[in-house]
This record gives sequence, structure tokens and C-alpha cells, in this order.
Amino acid sequence: MTTMPERTAEQDLPYDVFSRACPSRGTLEHVTGRWGALTLGALFEGSFRFNELRRRVDGVSEKMLSQTLHALERDGLVHREAQPTNPPRVDYELTPLGREVAERLVGLIEFVEGRMGDVLGARARYDETRGGR
Amino acid sequence: MTTMPERTAEQDLPYDVFSRACPSRGTLEHVTGRWGALTLGALFEGSFRFNELRRRVDGVSEKMLSQTLHALERDGLVHREAQPTNPPRVDYELTPLGREVAERLVGLIEFVEGRMGDVLGARARYDETRGGR
Repeated sequence: MTTMPERTAEQDLPYDVFSRACPSRGTLEHVTGRWGALTLGALFEGSFRFNELRRRVDGVSEKMLSQTLHALERDGLVHREAQPTNPPRVDYELTPLGREVAERLVGLIEFVEGRMGDVLGARARYDETRGGR
Repeated sequence: MTTMPERTAEQDLPYDVFSRACPSRGTLEHVTGRWGALTLGALFEGSFRFNELRRRVDGVSEKMLSQTLHALERDGLVHREAQPTNPPRVDYELTPLGREVAERLVGLIEFVEGRMGDVLGARARYDETRGGR
């Protein structure tokens, strides 16, 4: 299917995101990139039309959302369903694999949201010690 | 500690990564950004000196790793321990909060690595249908 990266003794899996040549690094970037993570997180709530998704992922441009969706669709994480209407109605939803990825991402997102008090406290202490940045 | 983003009826938490003004979005980006995710993933294995970490996170530049570590340290996820030796020896390790974040990230990374066969299969089908990209 593709050439696999070289294996070293410490690797248990044939794919390794720590190796810059491994294709898993690209997929991790699609999944965790600025807009990829939010797009998958939004689609975990249900299917969306393009403009609905754009409103949900506050701040994303039309171009960036389109690129993000293409990369996620190509990786098999998002399904694009076009209805043969005029104008065409296009819905985006997670594939079963995308749902498994999004579930883990949403766990991470909710954990971060829930601990922002600690994060902001740490930032305040850091800036005080270092005299601000 | 900081101003919280406006709450809307659908939010259960005061912090919401979907809102572009929320500080949790910046932290999510530090955590999931290209080098943030790999740095946290590496530190989940143990403490590292700067140059060890740079070798582990294959492809990162000195400047990007330094910026990444600063952002994670400021957010309270990474602890920087400088020994008063000459030359100074500096170790980086996860804080307890950083460990909880990294645990979730590593779960996501390992899941993605384990499903790369499916991802690459999806890519091949996509490129065949769309005539390549």
C-alpha cells in the first residue's frame, strides 16, 4: 500500500509519528492541526453543512475549512455527502474511523477546557517570575 | 484570574475552544500543534535534556523546540529544571497536569499510528476517484 518507515528496536508499531518520514505524522497533523481538531470536534456533535460548520468553527476562513475538510475526507475520517439537488446540498459527517479519532480529541479538548483555571494560573506565575513576555 | 468568554445557553463549561476569543483555544494549539503534540508525547516517556529531545522529535529546529517548550512551560504543562553546574544542565519533564494532557495525546497518537493502514487505503481510493491531487 505504501512504503513503511524503517523500524528500530524500540518501535512496536510500523508507523511512528516521531519519525519525520512516517506518513502517520501527516495524518496526526490533519487531526490535531488548528482547524482539523476543531472541525472533527464539531462533527462529533453531528452532521453539518459547510456554512453551518463554518459558523461553528469560529474564525475559520472558507478556504481553510475547505482545505481541512478535503484532507480529512482524503484520510477517510470525514464523509462528504452531496445531494443531487439544485443548488446541491452537501453534508459533512464523520466516518466510523473519524468518530473514533474525534472521540479521543473531544476527550482532550474537554480536559483542556476543564483545566484552563490551572493553565491561566500557571501563566500568571510564569509571567510574574520572568517579568512578562 | 482572567476575563472569561461570554457564555451562551449551549455551553456547559466557561471555556470553549470553539470560540475564537477563548484562551483555551491557544492552549489547545500549544498542546496539539505540530511540535507541541510530539514534544508532550516524547516527555511522556520520561525527562529529556534539550538536545536529547531535539533528536527524539525528529525534524524540529532548535528555535521551534525552544518556542514550543516555553509555551508548554508557561501553560504549566512542562517543568524546566536547571542544575547549577557549569555548563548548566537543563532537564525538561511533564508536570502532573502535563502528564494528564500527554496521556490523552499519546492515546490519540497511538490510535492514529495503529490505523494508518486504513488511512492510507482511504487516501488511495480518494485519489483514484478524484484522479489524484
